[in-house]
Amino acid sequence: MRLVIVGGVAGGASAAARARRLSEDAEIVLVERGPDVSFANCGLPYYVGGEIAAREKLLVTSPEMLRKRFKLDVRTRSQVESIDRTNKSVRIRDLAADKVYDERYDKLILAPGAAPLRPPIPGIDLPGIFTLRNLQDVDRIKAAVDGGVTQAVVVGAGFIGLELVENFVKRGLATTVVELQDQVMPPFDKEMTAPILATLKAKGVTVLLGQSAEAFEAATGGLTVRLKSGPSLPAQLVILGVGVRPENKLAVDAGLDVGPRGGIKVNDRMLTSDPDIYAVGDAVETRDFVSGGPTQVPLAGPANRQGRLAANHIFGAPGAYRGTQGTAVVGVFGLVAAMTGASEKILRRTNTPFRKIYIHPANHAGYYPGAEGMSLKLLFDPADGRILGAQAVGGAGVDKRIDVLAVALQARMTVYDLEEMELAYAPQFGSAKDPVNMAGFVAAGMLRGEHPQVDVDAVLAQAASEPAAAGMLRGEHPQVEVDAVLAQAASEPAAAGMLRGEHPQVEVDAVLAQAASEPVAARPFLLDVRTPAEFAAGHLPGAVNIPVDDLRARLHEVPQDRPVAAYCQVGMRGYLATRILRQRGFDAANIGGGYRTYRLYHPEG
Amino acid sequence: MRLVIVGGVAGGASAAARARRLSEDAEIVLVERGPDVSFANCGLPYYVGGEIAAREKLLVTSPEMLRKRFKLDVRTRSQVESIDRTNKSVRIRDLAADKVYDERYDKLILAPGAAPLRPPIPGIDLPGIFTLRNLQDVDRIKAAVDGGVTQAVVVGAGFIGLELVENFVKRGLATTVVELQDQVMPPFDKEMTAPILATLKAKGVTVLLGQSAEAFEAATGGLTVRLKSGPSLPAQLVILGVGVRPENKLAVDAGLDVGPRGGIKVNDRMLTSDPDIYAVGDAVETRDFVSGGPTQVPLAGPANRQGRLAANHIFGAPGAYRGTQGTAVVGVFGLVAAMTGASEKILRRTNTPFRKIYIHPANHAGYYPGAEGMSLKLLFDPADGRILGAQAVGGAGVDKRIDVLAVALQARMTVYDLEEMELAYAPQFGSAKDPVNMAGFVAAGMLRGEHPQVDVDAVLAQAASEPAAAGMLRGEHPQVEVDAVLAQAASEPAAAGMLRGEHPQVEVDAVLAQAASEPVAARPFLLDVRTPAEFAAGHLPGAVNIPVDDLRARLHEVPQDRPVAAYCQVGMRGYLATRILRQRGFDAANIGGGYRTYRLYHPEG
Repeated sequence: MRLVIVGGVAGGASAAARARRLSEDAEIVLVERGPDVSFANCGLPYYVGGEIAAREKLLVTSPEMLRKRFKLDVRTRSQVESIDRTNKSVRIRDLAADKVYDERYDKLILAPGAAPLRPPIPGIDLPGIFTLRNLQDVDRIKAAVDGGVTQAVVVGAGFIGLELVENFVKRGLATTVVELQDQVMPPFDKEMTAPILATLKAKGVTVLLGQSAEAFEAATGGLTVRLKSGPSLPAQLVILGVGVRPENKLAVDAGLDVGPRGGIKVNDRMLTSDPDIYAVGDAVETRDFVSGGPTQVPLAGPANRQGRLAANHIFGAPGAYRGTQGTAVVGVFGLVAAMTGASEKILRRTNTPFRKIYIHPANHAGYYPGAEGMSLKLLFDPADGRILGAQAVGGAGVDKRIDVLAVALQARMTVYDLEEMELAYAPQFGSAKDPVNMAGFVAAGMLRGEHPQVDVDAVLAQAASEPAAAGMLRGEHPQVEVDAVLAQAASEPAAAGMLRGEHPQVEVDAVLAQAASEPVAARPFLLDVRTPAEFAAGHLPGAVNIPVDDLRARLHEVPQDRPVAAYCQVGMRGYLATRILRQRGFDAANIGGGYRTYRLYHPEG
Repeated sequence: MRLVIVGGVAGGASAAARARRLSEDAEIVLVERGPDVSFANCGLPYYVGGEIAAREKLLVTSPEMLRKRFKLDVRTRSQVESIDRTNKSVRIRDLAADKVYDERYDKLILAPGAAPLRPPIPGIDLPGIFTLRNLQDVDRIKAAVDGGVTQAVVVGAGFIGLELVENFVKRGLATTVVELQDQVMPPFDKEMTAPILATLKAKGVTVLLGQSAEAFEAATGGLTVRLKSGPSLPAQLVILGVGVRPENKLAVDAGLDVGPRGGIKVNDRMLTSDPDIYAVGDAVETRDFVSGGPTQVPLAGPANRQGRLAANHIFGAPGAYRGTQGTAVVGVFGLVAAMTGASEKILRRTNTPFRKIYIHPANHAGYYPGAEGMSLKLLFDPADGRILGAQAVGGAGVDKRIDVLAVALQARMTVYDLEEMELAYAPQFGSAKDPVNMAGFVAAGMLRGEHPQVDVDAVLAQAASEPAAAGMLRGEHPQVEVDAVLAQAASEPAAAGMLRGEHPQVEVDAVLAQAASEPVAARPFLLDVRTPAEFAAGHLPGAVNIPVDDLRARLHEVPQDRPVAAYCQVGMRGYLATRILRQRGFDAANIGGGYRTYRLYHPEG
């Protein structure tokens, strides 16, 4: 058996090591275009910042080590230029000697990776404009930073972009992020990125959303990044982190099937359309674990597993690729954001039915010092409660909960399973009701109908659908008005209940005018069940404050002819209020995740 | 509906709150013997140490809050003395007023908890001897520590015992732990507690294993703890942390079914043998999730879930208890130990077939600074690979991996599923091949036969089974002896291959003598495939060193007529060596987890 592997980083190196363990006799040729094999791609930004101080730390292994330990025929600085499928050989260019030769294979594994996009923007090839893929790239970027640049522009606010931003700031660079989307970290849902955006701003990063570079121009002592919207940004260092495209040229030239977004098509054994050619890693199109549809996700974990699986199949060991969940995590200035499975926007785009809940728990028992908060969003199937995706952002413990939910997703578990999970609890590590249990309680309660919930954005849109109503619903401290309200309630029709919490003189006319044109019942009554102090510190536009502990005694203040949308800070008291109200005949629902969720959609400042 | 709940801490308070959410109209009477409800039991040790500074932090809620928010009829300092099942009423003693009265119920939930054991040892009631269950207990203990005691003896090295030890040391007390078993943290397998023991010793704690108190005696300025083995320990403060027993008197007196270890028997809806009486929490006997047999596990998470489920059943909401996995975590001086499912000793005791593997990974990518090590043990079914249990000890990330494995256990996943898990990876948070994946690779490789493994203790027992053989196998640096060995191999029978790496003059005779009485083939050849420097720093008795990178060239140094037990530091290189050897016809296996596992069984110092 003669196995040739093209690409020696994550998927390729994993395939080679696995192949050797499965077969001492196979000839294994590992062809790598660059000088390094199996380097730590994910660590590159931290070498720029100095967190990883020694460059050799980034070299997970060396060609020499692979030769000695795994008896691999490692050929670095060697580029595979073409595949001859008929004769089962590849043409290799030795870049150092500039010689070309052919190498026969019985089986071929393509692990060429994906290349950073360099969009055809005028000036893109000016010095000072970098992408980040390998050690040579990071050497250039680090040299620029070490050389004393003071202003950096990072185009693209994804994983690599934001990791570089953090490290640039650490090195003292004034840093601007330019992102085409209206949010940072595009794989996440926008509202879940609000804390990341706030953190970036707090660290002095200028974040320009919905913007893109139109041209790069040479300027005195550096560059100018001209934005489509007009303004120009000075910089001595520009990073392009706007995505990657699969390195598919070899595959396309050889006539292998390639997907619409360029990924090499493979089956669940990582076999391409040629029965002797496998492909793995960032270059392939795989199956999305949740939707079952095609996907391209450049992640190290899947690449390693795919390499292992290709070797398994070649040497008769079992295993099949289950699809990619897209489990990922990023740290940004100490904030942690992680996700697994489908996002809400993907579910919407694919018309997949879903429900969602938000919770805002602490990572461990609140009574033990040092608890850090997080916001967690869970997406699930409304029919059977199956988990479709999860996202979390916050401090310590975010990665743990997403890993737990990633396993639950893989096991095709439901929100009902989350309720029953038995996780490790001591006050430093979790809560007797872990955030994952809480997410299960809230989601399962929604599906069982015990805990009707509405989305804060939908409620506010409803509440604001008639302009006159929006102003009318502006809430004030209700406790001073109880008597007035009670008087009103006795003498006026039910619609008057809607008015408590506002200045009565101004608003009655507006409401009556409005009531003629749109049924009052269509607009939700926003009920804030927090304490007056919490309410005073900020609340939903139009909300009325009745603390949950007073609610039973003040039920007459809540209108019976309109939907009631209750909320508190994180959803717990709002849930109890919803239960109280529904059992008393009100058409009540809880605004999922409460005021904290509102603030994800409408960040302060 | 009139619901009476006996006990207002974890399970009882959860049941009450859930009941109220499900029914606004139910009368809910919560009867609690003590003055507090729903306090933070698990935080008590940290209040002694001062980590939790304010006592009120331990009060998760208050009777007043439960009354206001949940409209509960909370009666503290009230003891239920008996149950009249015929008339469906309980007799309650108001401890403050010292009055007795009866209270009718439609449904009754027993959540009385478990009481710390106070074995009938002479002197057990002397002042200065405490158990820890509630705030009153912790007040007494803290008062003693604040009062300036200098010597503490903690009897019992379980969760509460060791948490108190840490906090006593933090307060400057000279602390001795007395434990009847031959290990600390008895729920764990002994070898996994070696790092805990080492940590305790490093912090100056005296740990006396296999010891028990025979008597407590008053002494000048304090107490003397007399041990069964003879010696006496001076102390001004003694803690009894030797376990708990279910508070089952009410249930027993009422004729409810109780298990052999005292737990109140319940079905999966938490219903006792009386269809109107439920029981939850530390007082009940539940089903073990792994074995399906009866178990009693006093843990906060299960208690809370059980309380919720009892309320669900009473008010017609769905849900069933799935059994207790025993997922638990403890922090001891920064070290973290966590487990889920069955331990090896439980599996042995119940004659359950199992296999086990050990790995010793870092919590995140080694190239990123600050990685902390852990040892992880996985127990699984040899027939289908189903996960039976897991234990881990180390630094950061231990709780995360055990939570992930707890979910996998709950989902009845296999070691093959662990191989495919897609967990969150960035260099600060994990590895592209997460410890959980690694555990899956090693375990699945074992079951598939790709990666034969032997247990270090079994191998050493074999190697030592014949005293003469043990000395014979003492390894030396083999590289100086290659020529001698080759000469031998050419002129001597196969058995001579076994001798390389030893002083040949002394040993040949011994071996030949031994070979007559026991087949040489029965004894494993211990092959250390680490570097000479690692070997020199410590190795298995009798091992021979051939670094893995040299193994292919030195295969002739490995005997073909005996089993070969290869090992390295953590198992990776030993695995590769095993693969090389087996493909060359050797009867090789890897010593699972390598030298690090050996050191768990045979700690240094």
